[in-house]
Amino acid sequence: MPYENAVTALQARFHDQLSLQMPERQAHGRDEGGHEGMPPDAVLRAHSTGDVADAVAICSRYRMPVIPFGAGTSLEGHVCAPLGGLTIDLSAMQDILTLNETDQDVRVQAGVTRQALNAYLRDKGLFFPVDPGSECTLGGMAATRASGTNAVRYGTMREQVLSLQVVTTSGEIIETGTRARKSAAGLDLSHLFVGSEGTLGVITELSLKLHGIPEKQAAGVCRFPNLKAATDTVMNTIQMGIPVSRIELLDELSIRAVNAHAGTTHIEAPTLFLEFGGTPAGVDEQIATFTDLALSCGGAHIEFADNQENISRMWHARHNLYYATLAMGPGKRIVTTDVCVPISRLGDCMLETRGDLQNSPIMATMLGHVGDGNFHTIMLADPDSREEMAAMQALNERMVRRAIEMGGTCTGEHGIGMGKRTFLEWEKGPALALMRQIKTALDPHGIMNPGKMLPD
Amino acid sequence: MPYENAVTALQARFHDQLSLQMPERQAHGRDEGGHEGMPPDAVLRAHSTGDVADAVAICSRYRMPVIPFGAGTSLEGHVCAPLGGLTIDLSAMQDILTLNETDQDVRVQAGVTRQALNAYLRDKGLFFPVDPGSECTLGGMAATRASGTNAVRYGTMREQVLSLQVVTTSGEIIETGTRARKSAAGLDLSHLFVGSEGTLGVITELSLKLHGIPEKQAAGVCRFPNLKAATDTVMNTIQMGIPVSRIELLDELSIRAVNAHAGTTHIEAPTLFLEFGGTPAGVDEQIATFTDLALSCGGAHIEFADNQENISRMWHARHNLYYATLAMGPGKRIVTTDVCVPISRLGDCMLETRGDLQNSPIMATMLGHVGDGNFHTIMLADPDSREEMAAMQALNERMVRRAIEMGGTCTGEHGIGMGKRTFLEWEKGPALALMRQIKTALDPHGIMNPGKMLPD
Repeated sequence: MPYENAVTALQARFHDQLSLQMPERQAHGRDEGGHEGMPPDAVLRAHSTGDVADAVAICSRYRMPVIPFGAGTSLEGHVCAPLGGLTIDLSAMQDILTLNETDQDVRVQAGVTRQALNAYLRDKGLFFPVDPGSECTLGGMAATRASGTNAVRYGTMREQVLSLQVVTTSGEIIETGTRARKSAAGLDLSHLFVGSEGTLGVITELSLKLHGIPEKQAAGVCRFPNLKAATDTVMNTIQMGIPVSRIELLDELSIRAVNAHAGTTHIEAPTLFLEFGGTPAGVDEQIATFTDLALSCGGAHIEFADNQENISRMWHARHNLYYATLAMGPGKRIVTTDVCVPISRLGDCMLETRGDLQNSPIMATMLGHVGDGNFHTIMLADPDSREEMAAMQALNERMVRRAIEMGGTCTGEHGIGMGKRTFLEWEKGPALALMRQIKTALDPHGIMNPGKMLPD
Repeated sequence: MPYENAVTALQARFHDQLSLQMPERQAHGRDEGGHEGMPPDAVLRAHSTGDVADAVAICSRYRMPVIPFGAGTSLEGHVCAPLGGLTIDLSAMQDILTLNETDQDVRVQAGVTRQALNAYLRDKGLFFPVDPGSECTLGGMAATRASGTNAVRYGTMREQVLSLQVVTTSGEIIETGTRARKSAAGLDLSHLFVGSEGTLGVITELSLKLHGIPEKQAAGVCRFPNLKAATDTVMNTIQMGIPVSRIELLDELSIRAVNAHAGTTHIEAPTLFLEFGGTPAGVDEQIATFTDLALSCGGAHIEFADNQENISRMWHARHNLYYATLAMGPGKRIVTTDVCVPISRLGDCMLETRGDLQNSPIMATMLGHVGDGNFHTIMLADPDSREEMAAMQALNERMVRRAIEMGGTCTGEHGIGMGKRTFLEWEKGPALALMRQIKTALDPHGIMNPGKMLPD
C-alpha cells in the first residue's frame, strides 16, 4: 500500500482514531462542489492539537500528504486527495475554550461550527457574524477566507481572526498573533494562514472577534423593474454609508425558482433582501434613507419587518435559493460561480453575465452579496451533455476574465481549491511566483494539501 | 568605497538622482526615534516605479543593501543603514493616480503623504482616516502598519490597504491584490507586505479604501478622579458598541505638561478626548449614551462641541502633548513606548505602568489610543546619566513583558525596526522561525532593509 511506513507509524500512535476503511476515506475525499471524489489513503480523527502535531510530524518524516478536513463543505475540491495521503478530520475538536466577554473575543478549537458558536453565545448578547451557506467549521472557514451575507457590515474571516494556533509542516505548534486588537509586530502570519487552504499548515485553534447583537434589527425586501435599478440602489446605499447589515440581490429567475419550489407567490422581479441593525432611532433612520434611495431608483413593493418571525419569513426565499435552483433541473450538475468586482462595476458585470446566460443553453439563477460587489450564478448543466458541460465551463471562464478586467477577483469567498488554479494564475500574474516561494519555504517537501491553490 | 561596482552601475543609470554626499546620506540614515544615525552609502531619489525596479535590480546583482525611505518619521530606526547600502527615497513619488469616488478607493504613489491625500479629497466628501502623529508617506505607513487616533473606528493601515504595487528583491514589479472589497484568491500578499518594514520589497503604489465624511461630527472631553475610572469608562464604551471615532486618554501629568507648555488652565486630571461622527440623531444618541456611562464611572466636567473651531480647540491639548513633554526636560533623550493589550487588561496595564514610573527616576507622560487597548508613555532621560538611561530601558522592557503576559503585543503601531527585535522574539516565540523562512524565501541574499525586524 502507499505510504506503508507512515501508515504503520500512524497506527502505532493513533490506533482506533485512524481509519483505512474505504467508506470513511471516500466520505473525506470529496466536498460539496462538483469535483470528482479523490479519497485519501487514511483518515485521522484528531482530538487535540497534540494529535495533529504528531500526525503531521509522522507525515513529514515519510513525505505523506496531509489534507486538513473540517466539515467538507468547500466547493472547489479543497479536501480532495489527488495524491492520496492522510486526511486529518478536525470536526471532533469542538471545544469553546475561553470567552472574553469584555474584549468581545473567543478562543475555539478548529472543529467548532459557526452554528455551535452562535448557539453558545445566544444569551451573552454577542454573536459571530460570518455565515457561509452551510454548517461549516471555523477552522475551515479561516482556511478558505470564508464570508457570507454579513460581510458588507462585519467583513469576512479576514477581519474576524485575531490569532491562530497552527501546526506547521514540521509538526511544530505556533501562535500567529495575540488578542490585541492591533499590532505592528513583525510579519502578519495570521493573515498569511487565513485563506491558505491548508497548503501551509493545519489550523487547530482560533481567537476570533465577536460583535454585540444590535439593540434593534429590522429586515426588508424591495423589488425593482430591472437588474440595473437594483444594482444602482445598492451602489448608492454603500456610497451613502448606510450601515446595512445585509443587502442581498436575487434576480427574477431566482424568485421564480423559489416560488416553484416552495409554492410561494413572491413578485417575480429582481429583489433586494435587506437587514438593518443598530439603535431603534438609528434603524429607523437607515430604513428611511434607504427607502428614499430605492424609490428614486425605481424600487417598489418595499416591505419591512422588525420582529424575528417576520424577518425570518422574509429571508426564507433567500435561504432556499440553492435548493430551489437544484429543483429546476433534477439530476443536473451544479456549478456555482463566485466573482467579486468593485461596486461601481457590479451592475455592468451582472448585466453582461445575464446576457451571456441568455445566449447559452445553460439555466442559471443569479444572486449576490451585492454590498461587497460579490455575486454568484448557480448554473445547471446535464452531466451527460458534452455541449452543456462545455458551455458551463466557458461561461465561468468568461465571467472570471470579465471580473479581473473590471479590477475584481475570480473568487469572492469560495477559494481556489483544485477548481480555480488557472484562474488564480490569470488574476495574479507574476505575483504568483511569491506565493510559490512562500509555499516552498514553509512546506519544502510539498506535503500540505498538494494539488490545491497553486497551479502545477 | 563599499559597493563600488553597484554605485558605478547606479550612477550610470541615475546620474543626478543619485547622491553620494554625506549630508544627504546622514539625513537619510536616521529617523525621529532616538536611534543612532547610520548613513547609507548612497541615496537615490526615485521618480517612478521603474526607477525603483532598476535600482533594486542593480543592488540585487551586487548584493548591496536597499533601504526604502518615505518621510523618515519612523521611531524604531527603520531607515538606519547599519550595513550601508542604497537608500531609495520615494518622497518625490507624489502622484494621486486614480480616485474612484463610487468605490471609495484611491490609487496613489508611495510618496504621497496622508495630509496631501486628505487635502486632495477635501471637497469630495471623502477622507483617509489613518493619522499617525507626523507628516508621513502612505508607503511608509503601509510598510510599518501604522495607525493613530481613528483606528478604534476605522482600523489601521491593515484595514485600509486594498492592494499594493511592490518591487520585489529581484527588481520585478508585482501587484498584491485587486480593488475588490473581498477575495478568497490565494495567499494574502497584501497583508504580508503591510507591516513588512521594507524587509521583503519596496512598496511603490497603493490602492487604499476611503471613507465618507460623517454628516455630523462632535468632540468632547471628560475628566476623571483617577486613571481606573477613565479606563473603566473606555472599556464600557467599547463593550456597549458606541461607535466613537476617537477616544484618547491623557493622564494628569500630561495635562500638567500641556498647561505648563501652552499656558492653558485645563483641569489636571486624567482626561478622555472623544470624537463622535454620524447622522445628527446618531451623534446625539452616542453622546447621550457615553455621558451616562462616564457619569456612572465617576466622570465629571464633561464638555461637548460640535463646530470645527471648538473641536480643534479641544483637541489642541492632545496634539501638543509630545512637544509639551519634551519641554519638561530640555536636552533629555525621549523614548516612546507602544504596548497594546486586550481592552479588559488596559486599566491594569496602565496602573501597573504608572506604579513602575513612580518608583523610578524617570519622568514620563502617559497617553493612549485607549479604544484599541494601545497606550504610549513618553519617557525622558538624561542621555549622560547611565542610571537614567538604564532605568528607561528597564521600564520599557518591563512594560513589554507585562503586555505580552496580558495577551498583548510589544508594539501597537510603531513597529519593530532596529529597536524592538528582541521584543519580537519574546512575543512570537517559535512563530519567529516562519518569519525567517519567509524572509529567506523572498529575499535570499538578505539585501532588503537588513538589520531590521528579525533578530540577528
